[in-house]
Amino acid sequence: MERIAVGLLGVGTVGSGVARLLGERADLITRRSGKRVDLKRAVVRDLGKSRGVSLDGVEVSDDPRRVIDDPEISVVIETMGGTHPTLGIVLDCLAAGKHVVTANKALLAEHGREVFAQARKYGRAVAFEASVGGGIPIIQALAVGLAANQVTSLAAIVNGTCNYILTKMTQDGLPYSVALGQAQGLGFAEADPTLDVDGTDTAHKLAVLAQLAFGATVTTDQIPREGIDRLQPADITYAGELGYTVKLLALAKLAGEALELRVAPTLVKRGTPLAEVRGPYNAVRVVGDAVGDTLFYGRGAGELPTASAVVGDLIDVVVGRAALTFNALNLWADDAPPARLATANLVRSRYYLRFSIADQPGVLATLAKSLGSHGISIASVIQHDPGDDATDGHVPLVIMTHLAAEASLKSALAEIDRLDVVRRPSVCLGVED
Amino acid sequence: MERIAVGLLGVGTVGSGVARLLGERADLITRRSGKRVDLKRAVVRDLGKSRGVSLDGVEVSDDPRRVIDDPEISVVIETMGGTHPTLGIVLDCLAAGKHVVTANKALLAEHGREVFAQARKYGRAVAFEASVGGGIPIIQALAVGLAANQVTSLAAIVNGTCNYILTKMTQDGLPYSVALGQAQGLGFAEADPTLDVDGTDTAHKLAVLAQLAFGATVTTDQIPREGIDRLQPADITYAGELGYTVKLLALAKLAGEALELRVAPTLVKRGTPLAEVRGPYNAVRVVGDAVGDTLFYGRGAGELPTASAVVGDLIDVVVGRAALTFNALNLWADDAPPARLATANLVRSRYYLRFSIADQPGVLATLAKSLGSHGISIASVIQHDPGDDATDGHVPLVIMTHLAAEASLKSALAEIDRLDVVRRPSVCLGVED
Repeated sequence: MERIAVGLLGVGTVGSGVARLLGERADLITRRSGKRVDLKRAVVRDLGKSRGVSLDGVEVSDDPRRVIDDPEISVVIETMGGTHPTLGIVLDCLAAGKHVVTANKALLAEHGREVFAQARKYGRAVAFEASVGGGIPIIQALAVGLAANQVTSLAAIVNGTCNYILTKMTQDGLPYSVALGQAQGLGFAEADPTLDVDGTDTAHKLAVLAQLAFGATVTTDQIPREGIDRLQPADITYAGELGYTVKLLALAKLAGEALELRVAPTLVKRGTPLAEVRGPYNAVRVVGDAVGDTLFYGRGAGELPTASAVVGDLIDVVVGRAALTFNALNLWADDAPPARLATANLVRSRYYLRFSIADQPGVLATLAKSLGSHGISIASVIQHDPGDDATDGHVPLVIMTHLAAEASLKSALAEIDRLDVVRRPSVCLGVED
Repeated sequence: MERIAVGLLGVGTVGSGVARLLGERADLITRRSGKRVDLKRAVVRDLGKSRGVSLDGVEVSDDPRRVIDDPEISVVIETMGGTHPTLGIVLDCLAAGKHVVTANKALLAEHGREVFAQARKYGRAVAFEASVGGGIPIIQALAVGLAANQVTSLAAIVNGTCNYILTKMTQDGLPYSVALGQAQGLGFAEADPTLDVDGTDTAHKLAVLAQLAFGATVTTDQIPREGIDRLQPADITYAGELGYTVKLLALAKLAGEALELRVAPTLVKRGTPLAEVRGPYNAVRVVGDAVGDTLFYGRGAGELPTASAVVGDLIDVVVGRAALTFNALNLWADDAPPARLATANLVRSRYYLRFSIADQPGVLATLAKSLGSHGISIASVIQHDPGDDATDGHVPLVIMTHLAAEASLKSALAEIDRLDVVRRPSVCLGVED
């Protein structure tokens, strides 16, 4: 039986899971790939560090050249993360004629064009199922399963840390900082959670998903993003009263010929599958013009779920399918058009608005008139008897709009926020029904 | 550019959708497959029937030999359904060197071994994404995306008719017959709905799914099945009180080395993604030992959703991936072991039980004692003040058990149903948490 020698770059959480699966599932992998897959070499940053997985029989080094320069190794698994020095190493692996399986969304979002051009130049494949949604086979679904569709919209919960924190804030009424602390205590959030909670990680993943779903080249800096770190518990509570739950969504939608892209906390209608994605789980909703609504759900991170996707990709490479998919997709191609972004007058959504208004007669009428004069129609209003809610004579007023153009909404909010009777800048969140 | 000539067998609902996509999406399909895909010939039963799709430029015949004997046609799409004469035609197409894309779960469930052996004999591929779950790429997920996993359990809602009826019964409190009538009126149920509502269609799909997930050959007659046609509204109501909703589930679980297979109305915990699958939607929950819980959701039937899966398969065939997948999977192989079914002492579940008991002292104690003597522990009980519920001095008693062996439960129920104080055979439904 033919033997496939594999190199592993990085033996952190995901790399350990990959080493574990390759060791413990050797028979299963042989049965499904038709070949014997051997982990020959691993590269680690710190040779002295103890790991939770046995690397017996694997040549371990701290020098990536040991993998790059080994002609027997035909597939390299990259689980180092980050873009430097990862990019250079991945480019060298491809130049050395190795296929690359990667879990690295930042690398693809920031340097997809270079990585894919290099792979095409040397006739090799890049497989990246693990880069988005952990073990959920969403890359494959977009690339293969839904290939007969023009995707019209995509809405994704792809950051488990944020979803865990939001779930805690929602279920237990916790403020952001307390929920974050709990997530850190349980290992669902990093000591420095910035890239998760500010939406950067989600934007990286959206750049990959949008590329696949819409064929246009998307760079992370094209994606307006807002994290969960400034979300107020009050907005979660009011959303609940309106029948919605708040999720950090990665959104990509066709608006005419253009593409709307966005990462932001968003109200999602309760009782829909996307709203029921709790804790560290991820999900991607894809609407295709033939298939209609679909949803893909599972664990978005963690050692074994992510390793499941990596080893699935490895089998795909070994069987020879990954190369066919890679060529057919022609991703991040030189001739792929850059995404044409929808302008604010093309973007239409329902909106959740919260104002802090003076508790005096006529204010609601003033706001409603301002919204109306910009063509924005009100679907529902929450204003409770002030009681304890009044602060310095100001009370919260919550308005849910009907579908409105983003440009009109922004004009209306700018006008409203200038009013004397409005104390703080208004809060505005999009709504997905 | 290379041209691929395609033959279409059957232009009913799904076949029309396929013809429509091939016509309207020619550019998209070319972009994703790298070849020009032409629908050359279609075979229909009744040449005189008008269809909702244009077949201009397609040679239409009522003779399948026109497709089988055309050497230019390299891929045949089978959307005739049924097993006779479909089986013979499909075997002839394979013998004539054509790849086959099929949406036919009955054909695979009943004759998978013959079809796949023929394909292997002639070096051709069979692709069948559309056979289960309509447009949901669940076949591909099991065959490729989750290939690094040993699947440990699978729970699927794969009959849109039943799910629509159950949703109506649940939301509007309708009896089965009324909900069925509404489903028929809206086109969600056939005039003769027997194969849907008695669980046969679901069992066909489970045979396909279980084959993929567990590698063992499963035949439909190995699957105990119970439909929704005898389900009482009362059980949906009591399930709701306990925090559950009732779904027709296809279940396949590893129980030690053996496999538990079952199609039955089952209580599913509310707030879980599977419980929120409403109306004609389908979903498949797959638990893998590496990936954990996953769920795949979408429209399970209909012209375009199913055609989405068929044309996705067609692209997969044209690109050359389908043949690699087909060979790697080695499905319905001669050397594949037949599924070893779990005996009733290996199957463990929580159970929902409803008894009709005499409204007199000591009856609850008698039943509880009988359950206890068989090692079955009670998790919760519902017995309402009789009021209007009492019929002939009998009242309903609902019990939810903790995990129990099926064998013990059956013994206990047999004992209880013999008691004088119990009026009717007890109702017993499984529970998925």
